[in-house]
Amino acid sequence: MQQAIRIIGIDPGLRRTGWGVVESLGNSLRFVGSGTVRSNDKADLASRLCQLHDGLSDIMHVHMPMEAAVEQTFVNKDATATLKLGQARGIAMLVPARAGIPVAEYAPNAVKKAVVGAGHGDKRQIHMMVRVLMPKATFDSDDAADALAIAICHAHNRLGVTARAAYA
Amino acid sequence: MQQAIRIIGIDPGLRRTGWGVVESLGNSLRFVGSGTVRSNDKADLASRLCQLHDGLSDIMHVHMPMEAAVEQTFVNKDATATLKLGQARGIAMLVPARAGIPVAEYAPNAVKKAVVGAGHGDKRQIHMMVRVLMPKATFDSDDAADALAIAICHAHNRLGVTARAAYA
Repeated sequence: MQQAIRIIGIDPGLRRTGWGVVESLGNSLRFVGSGTVRSNDKADLASRLCQLHDGLSDIMHVHMPMEAAVEQTFVNKDATATLKLGQARGIAMLVPARAGIPVAEYAPNAVKKAVVGAGHGDKRQIHMMVRVLMPKATFDSDDAADALAIAICHAHNRLGVTARAAYA
Repeated sequence: MQQAIRIIGIDPGLRRTGWGVVESLGNSLRFVGSGTVRSNDKADLASRLCQLHDGLSDIMHVHMPMEAAVEQTFVNKDATATLKLGQARGIAMLVPARAGIPVAEYAPNAVKKAVVGAGHGDKRQIHMMVRVLMPKATFDSDDAADALAIAICHAHNRLGVTARAAYA
């Protein structure tokens, strides 16, 4: 019997980090939970990173995912914005890695392709497809919806990998 | 009697993160230790961030600093380099913050000014002045020397703050 794999997708950001947990069994996907970890933008940077760390650690303890996937973002804005995102992303990758689970990275286009079927779907299309693929899915922010899309992308990708391995 | 304040300076980088610990008592500075936490550039990003986290956590446990200072870097290189640095910097700020100590940030020019006396000293001048200010200081990399300079900068700056408060 196949074992269901519980996957956490994370869409990192200093102000809001979205998370989404799904269970993947064969070709089926089940929504487990999603949400948004927020940091207080009046606090200093170190405290905000702690807030993201503690929030994500709590989610890990509650949902016990077995694999993680984080969006591989490339920002074209200014260096300050990129540095901020990098700091949040460092925490988003550290938390699952310290929990001892593998952390995959996916480019935004790969996430769009896995969910919408094309590499250039807009946010609305992605959110709609998340709901089509998992009718029970709920999300409280765009970041949480994106995080679910990242988890779905990983579920598809790891299936592909397994299938390739099985038929190699 | 004044209490000596133990300060850790951190110069973050994904490949090498330098650290330096000093003790500040009134106008005097004492070298405590310095070194470099390295990550394995053959490992995946999440594992490398873990390596930096664990290395810095060990230093915190050994030296028990009471305050931390991290360089406020702005990279003018490409977005990929900035994102990498941001991820390492996120860990460098998280570790002392989670230990419950305040984390100050200093711009590179402020560090140069505190150590060399001018905002445009080059690396060699900074390293020489670290040795002049703390003859017993040793360092195993440029990053460790820079981290000591950051700790010295914080020692100077917090003295100034205390003096202003005392005479306000």
